Amino acid sequence: MPSDQTCDSVCEVARALSVVGDRWTLLIMRELTLGMHKFEEIQALTGMSSHLLSNRLKRMEEDGLLKRKKYSSRPARYEYHATPKGKELDGVTLALRGWMLRWGAYQRGDEPAFKIVHKKTGQVIDGHWQIPPGDRPFTFDDVDGSLSKAFAAEREARRAAFKASKQRPSVRRKRNRR
Amino acid sequence: MPSDQTCDSVCEVARALSVVGDRWTLLIMRELTLGMHKFEEIQALTGMSSHLLSNRLKRMEEDGLLKRKKYSSRPARYEYHATPKGKELDGVTLALRGWMLRWGAYQRGDEPAFKIVHKKTGQVIDGHWQIPPGDRPFTFDDVDGSLSKAFAAEREARRAAFKASKQRPSVRRKRNRR
Repeated sequence: MPSDQTCDSVCEVARALSVVGDRWTLLIMRELTLGMHKFEEIQALTGMSSHLLSNRLKRMEEDGLLKRKKYSSRPARYEYHATPKGKELDGVTLALRGWMLRWGAYQRGDEPAFKIVHKKTGQVIDGHWQIPPGDRPFTFDDVDGSLSKAFAAEREARRAAFKASKQRPSVRRKRNRR
Repeated sequence: MPSDQTCDSVCEVARALSVVGDRWTLLIMRELTLGMHKFEEIQALTGMSSHLLSNRLKRMEEDGLLKRKKYSSRPARYEYHATPKGKELDGVTLALRGWMLRWGAYQRGDEPAFKIVHKKTGQVIDGHWQIPPGDRPFTFDDVDGSLSKAFAAEREARRAAFKASKQRPSVRRKRNRR
């Protein structure tokens, strides 16, 4: 049963939070937005354990936030894509980003990790931008975006660290035994 | 050190999520908005354990989301009040609420738990309302609100259950020992 229907409250905020849960759901949605659709890509870039990611993707599918698409039969492999319901959480992510840009002790000249421009108006979306009235609920489909150098470098480093961790399975297995 | 400065990412979304953490932070902020400022009130209405609530309030104070005000010296008792930084998370809560109103399988005639009207424009804030352009970042100070009957009843039931649980300390202690 979807998480919001097992929530013990009638409050929409409590029900929405029972679906979003903790930070991992929105970080996974961020990765889908950035074009990462495969399990290991998402794992590398969020830093989640495969167990946690696997459980969370299942719950997100039950909650209607994403759909699986099989892209290989032997072995069975899936891509994960946001549904319209999932995409509309982008408005929540945008609000979190705006709040952090206003309150995150940014120095003059600091670039946001993800520079975004509203396609229809050409406005740069900063911490004070508001969704134009009359627009459909915001999704990141409404923007053009580019990664800052710092965020691109962070993502490369995460990919490299993940790849390295996959090449040391024996070390990892030993550690897990302790 | 504030949570977003110990976050291992430059991404504003990841940093904001490291502050908000999980659902409890925004549920506590909801209670402050609804005029609950005392520890036991917040505990009763969120359903958090006192241990969890106590730790979370400390972290939220470190993160600058709320301030403690002493209202009794013997014994020392505190009220918790949202700071401007904390209040501006209201835009995130509003986005979550809007998303749930659009996707939460509401039936025609269902009331939202918290009916809110934008003071300046008199508009009812539903799942499609957008913050007027040029406004300061949204906070619930910008609205008038009233609880639905169902949400008011839920809150009464939570208060009653909490009160009852406080009157059976010996039973609870025994359970904890198992």
